[in-house]
Amino acid sequence: MRLRHKPWASEKISENPQYVVAQPEEKKGKWNEVFGNDNPIHIEVGTGKGQFVTEMARANPEVNYIGIELYESVIVTALDRLIEAELPNVKLLNVDARHLTDFFATEEVGRVYLNFSDPWPKNRHEKRRLTYKTFLKLYEDILIKGGEIHFKTDNQGLFEYSLMSFSWYGLHLKFLSLDLHNSDFEGNIMTEYEEKFSAKGQRIYRVEAQYQNQ
Amino acid sequence: MRLRHKPWASEKISENPQYVVAQPEEKKGKWNEVFGNDNPIHIEVGTGKGQFVTEMARANPEVNYIGIELYESVIVTALDRLIEAELPNVKLLNVDARHLTDFFATEEVGRVYLNFSDPWPKNRHEKRRLTYKTFLKLYEDILIKGGEIHFKTDNQGLFEYSLMSFSWYGLHLKFLSLDLHNSDFEGNIMTEYEEKFSAKGQRIYRVEAQYQNQ
Repeated sequence: MRLRHKPWASEKISENPQYVVAQPEEKKGKWNEVFGNDNPIHIEVGTGKGQFVTEMARANPEVNYIGIELYESVIVTALDRLIEAELPNVKLLNVDARHLTDFFATEEVGRVYLNFSDPWPKNRHEKRRLTYKTFLKLYEDILIKGGEIHFKTDNQGLFEYSLMSFSWYGLHLKFLSLDLHNSDFEGNIMTEYEEKFSAKGQRIYRVEAQYQNQ
Repeated sequence: MRLRHKPWASEKISENPQYVVAQPEEKKGKWNEVFGNDNPIHIEVGTGKGQFVTEMARANPEVNYIGIELYESVIVTALDRLIEAELPNVKLLNVDARHLTDFFATEEVGRVYLNFSDPWPKNRHEKRRLTYKTFLKLYEDILIKGGEIHFKTDNQGLFEYSLMSFSWYGLHLKFLSLDLHNSDFEGNIMTEYEEKFSAKGQRIYRVEAQYQNQ
């Protein structure tokens, strides 16, 4: 998405630590204390403007959600949404996903969501794709045994790449759909981006990929 | 495809054993003797009317091709094509793919092609799909180590199913395309079915799945 410079974003983020967690590395291994319950913790890597994570939190009060977003100018929109929604089971982290293991302990995370991740179409940028093997290793390091990545995208090239990357990593594929909005999948919660692009007739691809480390 | 009753097919097949091999179980382990060379042997399971296997044989004289087709009324059209083409490197087998190991020895086959296989869309017919795990085991039993299945189809449901089935079997996916005819894949040889359905704007899906038994 296009990034706008928002000089006030930084201040707004630091004024709302109840939503955008400050010093998240200090919470590593203690996220259930932060939420004050023992519910599973699901993270969305690249949470963007936060519609998915907010609506998931509203629909599933028995799950804790953490949205991770690198860009201040984007996460500030997600923050506005959380201030409005007043949900106890969703937090945001304004951090780089390459350092996930600084913020989460082994088996601390119950599920990883990747929604409409940046496709980085050039071959020389392969390592930046959130389904590249180094990221799959990071997710494995923080997920429960047999944990899953739930991935959707409208980008054909990224989906093709990701299915291959998952297979080479040894993940098992489940509920694969090459046209999510014309499938029998129920309870799909859309991202802002998904609403916009599916309205244009773009196909949405989805898959669940499960680690085999049980 | 629709099957027509062709009472003369059986006779025509038995009159042309140089193309439709008679008593193929006697050739198990001896296909290189049949072809009279040491070239690799690639098989197409469900060869239909034979356009793919014939054109592949014409384009790749250094490879031996064997097309396998259960239905006499269909294989007889492939036979007509071979009689016309007069190629030394292609044979047909009028047998059931469930008995592949009766006709090929361990590591006798260099590659398996599956093109526009019957989708068997009902769940209760899953075991009949040529990408069901029992078929993946049969192919593994006759393929060289690290052998590959090259699969294409226009059927979305069958492709979704097959990618999942491959991943659960531990196959690695390569050159996955969700729109073959708009991809940079070169040298695609079309089947009769592919020509017909892609002309209607239907997407063609393709993938190579490699065994990890090297």
